[in-house]
Amino acid sequence: MQLQGIRVVDLTRILSGPFCTMFLADMGAEVIKIEDPDEGDPVRKQGEAPNGYSFYFASFNRNKRSITLDLRSSEGKEILRKLLATADVLVNNYRPGIMDKMGFGREALAQIKPDLISCNVTGFGLDGPYADRPSFDFVAQAMSGFMSVNGAADQPPMRAAPPISDLVAGSYAAMGILAALVRRARTGQGEEVTTALTDSMTSMLAFLAANYFATGKLPLRTGNDHALASPYGLFEAADGQVAIAPSNDTFYLKLIDALELGHLRDRAEFKTNALRFENRALINAELNAKIKQQPIAHWIARLNVAGVPCGRVLNLGEVFEDPQTKHQQMRLTIEHPTHGAMDVLGFPIKFSDEPCVIHRPPPDLGADNVAVLQEIGLTPQAIAALSKRKII
Amino acid sequence: MQLQGIRVVDLTRILSGPFCTMFLADMGAEVIKIEDPDEGDPVRKQGEAPNGYSFYFASFNRNKRSITLDLRSSEGKEILRKLLATADVLVNNYRPGIMDKMGFGREALAQIKPDLISCNVTGFGLDGPYADRPSFDFVAQAMSGFMSVNGAADQPPMRAAPPISDLVAGSYAAMGILAALVRRARTGQGEEVTTALTDSMTSMLAFLAANYFATGKLPLRTGNDHALASPYGLFEAADGQVAIAPSNDTFYLKLIDALELGHLRDRAEFKTNALRFENRALINAELNAKIKQQPIAHWIARLNVAGVPCGRVLNLGEVFEDPQTKHQQMRLTIEHPTHGAMDVLGFPIKFSDEPCVIHRPPPDLGADNVAVLQEIGLTPQAIAALSKRKII
Repeated sequence: MQLQGIRVVDLTRILSGPFCTMFLADMGAEVIKIEDPDEGDPVRKQGEAPNGYSFYFASFNRNKRSITLDLRSSEGKEILRKLLATADVLVNNYRPGIMDKMGFGREALAQIKPDLISCNVTGFGLDGPYADRPSFDFVAQAMSGFMSVNGAADQPPMRAAPPISDLVAGSYAAMGILAALVRRARTGQGEEVTTALTDSMTSMLAFLAANYFATGKLPLRTGNDHALASPYGLFEAADGQVAIAPSNDTFYLKLIDALELGHLRDRAEFKTNALRFENRALINAELNAKIKQQPIAHWIARLNVAGVPCGRVLNLGEVFEDPQTKHQQMRLTIEHPTHGAMDVLGFPIKFSDEPCVIHRPPPDLGADNVAVLQEIGLTPQAIAALSKRKII
Repeated sequence: MQLQGIRVVDLTRILSGPFCTMFLADMGAEVIKIEDPDEGDPVRKQGEAPNGYSFYFASFNRNKRSITLDLRSSEGKEILRKLLATADVLVNNYRPGIMDKMGFGREALAQIKPDLISCNVTGFGLDGPYADRPSFDFVAQAMSGFMSVNGAADQPPMRAAPPISDLVAGSYAAMGILAALVRRARTGQGEEVTTALTDSMTSMLAFLAANYFATGKLPLRTGNDHALASPYGLFEAADGQVAIAPSNDTFYLKLIDALELGHLRDRAEFKTNALRFENRALINAELNAKIKQQPIAHWIARLNVAGVPCGRVLNLGEVFEDPQTKHQQMRLTIEHPTHGAMDVLGFPIKFSDEPCVIHRPPPDLGADNVAVLQEIGLTPQAIAALSKRKII
């Protein structure tokens, strides 16, 4: 696998950090998840758990090992130190400064492992006026500008339903770690990588930010209509809605030809994207009048043949029954040795030669205590004593 | 910089591919963007361009070189072959099969550069029933399940306003390329990496997918309310809305204490998250009655002191004037040598030792023709002849 031989010590919990280390684990890194001995990652208790195991936890913690460690105790810290001495990467999503307070600030880490790549996923960044504030996805969506542009024109700002700021910040963190590993292979040097929930969402404002920078004009909420292209959006077929996304003149002309509305080519008010944008209600009405004469399936088939991007709005049941989703294996079943079958999301990054695979089921809390601690030299007796005293 | 010495040949245009290679360029790779001699990347003509240069293009193509090349001509192909022989990475976002038709299929690439890492960002994947369909962001948002869960409960499915499927697929592509570079450093072997717009959005369904897999029940659209936690969402202060995101009991108790609503602790219908979820309207009404007595700024200050995640919904003007956004340098000004100042989005991945920097302004179309072609051994005369014949 891509990351064979890379060892990651993973202090993360909830979502942003575990999403980062999930990618590293899926690509073959050995990820040792360190959890609090009492309860472990809070996500273990979140979401539905039909086999006594949270599917939410499973999805983002497959392929990882789990050990428990009381990091308030000096013995717990000593074990973390030993683990870090064998590690390539350390990831945490504590608030800034917590690692310093625990005795694992930057200088301490450099003494333990000079070429360590250390990553902190934060709410707002390592420093600055809000660095100490708590943050969660919803706050990042609100404060990044993302919510202000989302939603219908006549409705309040709307978040995206999934916790995308956690997911984007986590995936950026994995990207930064991998870039630092590329550098380490060249220079032998470690690095400190940080991503923040709010920055991550701001980085996704794309042309909305670009146009704001260019003009100083605030982008408006446009619902399902594109902020630059028209026609573009949801249209009304005989049996429901169909998404049609012709992004430029070429696709627009293909669309009207496929709809047998070639006469619209000559309409002065539809000649350019700028004019169609101005006359969006008018062009949409022309298209809808035709589209509503046939069912969704008719248009999907016809428009795809004509090369016009289009699709049905699928609910999750339809998504995971869809032949392309199945072909791409975006739903995977893991046979857990004690909890039975659990389904998780598949791998969105495909490699031809050494693909991502499920090489370990999601771990029970502390499932790898004995194996991992023996690897760093602890005797069975010492491990039993730590367990008795609830250090692990 | 992290990726110093890595050379990327970049055939991408529009957004998903250029977003991928932007990360590689920002982290120090040498990215050679190859554009059609006639018009170049279509985004050069999209969005606002106050200095005669699209800020949208600038944001996603800073730090890259640009050469023009007619890839339909045999001489253009020969030059691409020469460039690839010097490259570490090739990225394209053509539809599957186009590279094969151009004579740059997998086997051809392996002959040109055996350890090349080749990446294709697609709509639906390299193969499968929809592989040949055209796709754009809106279609991916619709077909991934993402739109079905977005939006208000009493409204139709709603896309996210920015083109997030392009952005997520592009950043996953950068992550996959970097993982393959880590592997290449270990094994000397190349790889083929693919990401798809639809898979990328499906991968972001998080607990919504997990709970669907666990129960078979379709998630509902819940607008700004969290699908698992309550209270959580937008609340009404005296002068506008405030986002408050207490994700568990600990934060909930901090919230009601900070609001001086400690008596709610004893209310039977609010004892657990499950009960508060069931009684969301009731608990929200209790909170709003208190919150509307003071302005947003009062609550932001007070709740942050109490450790409750909260924030204001900022529009883009407010975001880029915000002290934390400024501290994080999420808006950068590039002084372009001929087009003047242009502002672009900053770097969401921070490195302590070798940070991302602007090392090149966004290029004019073909700005680096002479320099790049000389580097691969073409004489000034040969370059002039290619230019005259519009090969470059």
